[in-house]
Amino acid sequence: MKPYEHKAQYYETDQMGIIHHSNYIRWFESARIDFMGQMGVSYKAMEEEGIISPVLAVSCEYKSMVHFDDEVLITPSILEYNGIKLAISYVITDKKTGEVKTTGESRHCFLNKEGRPVSLKKQAPHFHEMFLKYSQQ
Amino acid sequence: MKPYEHKAQYYETDQMGIIHHSNYIRWFESARIDFMGQMGVSYKAMEEEGIISPVLAVSCEYKSMVHFDDEVLITPSILEYNGIKLAISYVITDKKTGEVKTTGESRHCFLNKEGRPVSLKKQAPHFHEMFLKYSQQ
Amino acid sequence: MKPYEHKAQYYETDQMGIIHHSNYIRWFESARIDFMGQMGVSYKAMEEEGIISPVLAVSCEYKSMVHFDDEVLITPSILEYNGIKLAISYVITDKKTGEVKTTGESRHCFLNKEGRPVSLKKQAPHFHEMFLKYSQQ
Amino acid sequence: MKPYEHKAQYYETDQMGIIHHSNYIRWFESARIDFMGQMGVSYKAMEEEGIISPVLAVSCEYKSMVHFDDEVLITPSILEYNGIKLAISYVITDKKTGEVKTTGESRHCFLNKEGRPVSLKKQAPHFHEMFLKYSQQ
Repeated sequence: MKPYEHKAQYYETDQMGIIHHSNYIRWFESARIDFMGQMGVSYKAMEEEGIISPVLAVSCEYKSMVHFDDEVLITPSILEYNGIKLAISYVITDKKTGEVKTTGESRHCFLNKEGRPVSLKKQAPHFHEMFLKYSQQ
Repeated sequence: MKPYEHKAQYYETDQMGIIHHSNYIRWFESARIDFMGQMGVSYKAMEEEGIISPVLAVSCEYKSMVHFDDEVLITPSILEYNGIKLAISYVITDKKTGEVKTTGESRHCFLNKEGRPVSLKKQAPHFHEMFLKYSQQ
Repeated sequence: MKPYEHKAQYYETDQMGIIHHSNYIRWFESARIDFMGQMGVSYKAMEEEGIISPVLAVSCEYKSMVHFDDEVLITPSILEYNGIKLAISYVITDKKTGEVKTTGESRHCFLNKEGRPVSLKKQAPHFHEMFLKYSQQ
Repeated sequence: MKPYEHKAQYYETDQMGIIHHSNYIRWFESARIDFMGQMGVSYKAMEEEGIISPVLAVSCEYKSMVHFDDEVLITPSILEYNGIKLAISYVITDKKTGEVKTTGESRHCFLNKEGRPVSLKKQAPHFHEMFLKYSQQ
């Protein structure tokens, strides 16, 4: 799997002269959606089939600052998947130096449009198989 | 009508040490929704009735910088309303000094959930009356 | 101490029809800065004295969704303070119902403009006293 | 010059199910900085030389909605440059269909760290030459 690449944008900086910490949570999302796409599970297609995957929890540790114009790689991997819940971990590294900038995790469930929990195994087995396959690596 | 008050947030700053210019567009939206609420037209209620009001155009002139922790007042007024389109102008002033910080405009139409133009006059006369009333002031 | 009040903005929603999860991290910051102000420690004044307080870690648990136009209260409290590091916890509740929407934590250090750790006790005793006072409550 | 490519992110959507209009202002900035880089004028280097280029005005016309996961191309060009002020126009098109989604403009000045106007011609002739070269095309 290819890591997700991002160039830190000017509008993501704050007056400390670094990337504002809230943006990493957004980068996690971008990397997660890209990762799902690489797995063959388009998040867009999932929503079009009536399944949303809200965030239950998120955490982030900032080890080193990212500055405007820095290029980072975000590497997600599946920590846990049981058909009902999904946990993903992230490592953000500097593209040039490989230095670890940030690590984090997010936890998700799957809901239908009425807001009720969905078992991917039953209701979307094609997505279930993919998550299962990549969670065993 | 009471102007909309906002305190400039840290996460809205950029590395120039000022509020990033994209945030004023968001403040216009906050002020517009607050203004509609004061008119008796809840934007939330409008969406619940199946009418959305997308932005057709927006413009903003930055006259003086806003910094973290500054308090500003945003005063919207209706420039033009004809039952089909709505134009609103905005003036952002410093709460303490009254200095004009920014001026701007936004233009809107009204659509139903299928994305077709709606005549507020016909389909939501209660909203229409309100916009009409406040556009004559 | 008064909790920090926030009305969920339209620009904070996403296409799930809820507030995007990254915004809560921003609300934590707003509440933290407001809380420091109430303690008598203006974050703006702290930066003007050459001390910044970057985020080392942040975590958030989403218990119930927040929607556009909902009013929430964000209550920060000091979890831990030792003169060098600061940990703050947050509870976000619905203003009307009191329902807990979100809980979270953030961890911070104090740095000078050269990026070196600062002992608040030595270099900014007036801030130190305040943090100490409110961490014992 | 290569247009700037962007894939519309989930966190950029709003509850209308489209990209929130404020994000286009950010995309203009990304495209402008990328464009300057292609011209040989790194905005980062410019700031490191003590010159900032704040936005004086911005405008945007939304012709067609952009949705999550859509890929767009943003093509900036220099409208006007006189050594003291710079105006850039933008066209956003759908990468697949070529359809024009949005057009816009931004106007900029050049300031030193004390906030005083800078003549690029005198104080940063290498940047001046580049802007001049690309404004004649």
